[in-house]
Amino acid sequence: MKNERRIFHEELDGDTSVLSPNESHHVSHVLRLRTGDKLVIFNGKGGSRPARVGETGRHEVEIVFAGPEVMQEPTAPRITLAAAPPKGQRMDTLVQMAQEIGLDELIPIITDNSAQQDFSENRYSRWRRVALAAAKQSGNNYVLDIKPATDFDDLLENLEPWDMQLVSHTGSGCANIREYLQNASRPENILLAVGPEGGFGEREIKSAKDAGCATVKLPAATLRVETAAVFALSAVCCQLDRKINVL
Amino acid sequence: MKNERRIFHEELDGDTSVLSPNESHHVSHVLRLRTGDKLVIFNGKGGSRPARVGETGRHEVEIVFAGPEVMQEPTAPRITLAAAPPKGQRMDTLVQMAQEIGLDELIPIITDNSAQQDFSENRYSRWRRVALAAAKQSGNNYVLDIKPATDFDDLLENLEPWDMQLVSHTGSGCANIREYLQNASRPENILLAVGPEGGFGEREIKSAKDAGCATVKLPAATLRVETAAVFALSAVCCQLDRKINVL
Repeated sequence: MKNERRIFHEELDGDTSVLSPNESHHVSHVLRLRTGDKLVIFNGKGGSRPARVGETGRHEVEIVFAGPEVMQEPTAPRITLAAAPPKGQRMDTLVQMAQEIGLDELIPIITDNSAQQDFSENRYSRWRRVALAAAKQSGNNYVLDIKPATDFDDLLENLEPWDMQLVSHTGSGCANIREYLQNASRPENILLAVGPEGGFGEREIKSAKDAGCATVKLPAATLRVETAAVFALSAVCCQLDRKINVL
Repeated sequence: MKNERRIFHEELDGDTSVLSPNESHHVSHVLRLRTGDKLVIFNGKGGSRPARVGETGRHEVEIVFAGPEVMQEPTAPRITLAAAPPKGQRMDTLVQMAQEIGLDELIPIITDNSAQQDFSENRYSRWRRVALAAAKQSGNNYVLDIKPATDFDDLLENLEPWDMQLVSHTGSGCANIREYLQNASRPENILLAVGPEGGFGEREIKSAKDAGCATVKLPAATLRVETAAVFALSAVCCQLDRKINVL
């Protein structure tokens, strides 16, 4: 798997297809592949197909599929991270590491203590590029799905998709995250919420508890958002023996 | 603790002292403190003392201690991370996150698969600055100790300081890290070794096993060095309920 040239393309049907400008550039100018060279096309949703480079134009590269589609088994439990995005490159680090670890879904949240945020299309594109590059590198055919920014309060009103909802907090009355995971029944869909610098507000913690979330404490001092997110993800993956079934 | 102005100074004895040029700059030009303002001086080895800003010159700031030294309890177990440093900013990220989590000691290692490395004094200074800034932010009076770069082979010949030695690896025959930690007796000093991109070589893994190290697997796909290091640290801290006793 490691030395495969992995190229992203949503469409895996048919005999041939034309790559996006970004991926065409990657094939021609970064990997410097030529007509006939082998690559693997993956769609970010688990599917992949072997292919070869076809005709290459100035700005677009055609691919010729060379085998049937195979599916990577989804990772269980499925994990959604709801995080108040830290500034600039620190959010890139969060996206990069979370994708490597195999996060399924990321919801940027707006909280009481959030500083003003940049949720521009530019910033979303950047996060998607970081996630895609990390998925290519780590051989994972699933790319994390980055959802529109959501008020934490609104998220709390729509918790049906998850059978376990954890909110990282430092106050008294929080469960130890390991003990909580050890004693709970194994979930299929976990929501893991990490607040901004300064943490969730008391009002938000009360709302989260009222909505059925468990507040859990990480065994560490004050962590930045991206560190708390990666720490909590690692704890969940270890405790639940989550394995990514890369092909 | 959060709103304290925390300043690093090795010497906590006496009534007054003069800060280093870097810390003087931080007090005068970053925090913009003036004579009489309160701060907390910490020595990176657990000790701290309340103080006030004294005379401030153009490039140096005097401090006047305003109370006795207090000691932060060391964190148990003590953790040493031996890691093959990733390039550039990615090593800064590793140092930053590891310090936040409360790593005690970092040994940059040279391994069979290591690319050529920059171990210049410049780079060490940078790592120390990153660690110090993270310790200030997270309220931890211990700053991680960054050791000289060491051949992994040489490290394996000097394992006496640690009563548990874990080597992160992906091959067959590796224990699951959680199961290993759950079944082992609680260590006092852990060595956690993380290899370069491409992992440790088979020869190195054999040497590590012969030297008494346990090879452990992280439940994730291929991780970058800094992600693997933070993942493994988080797993160890969670599994052993390690708590940092910040004041």
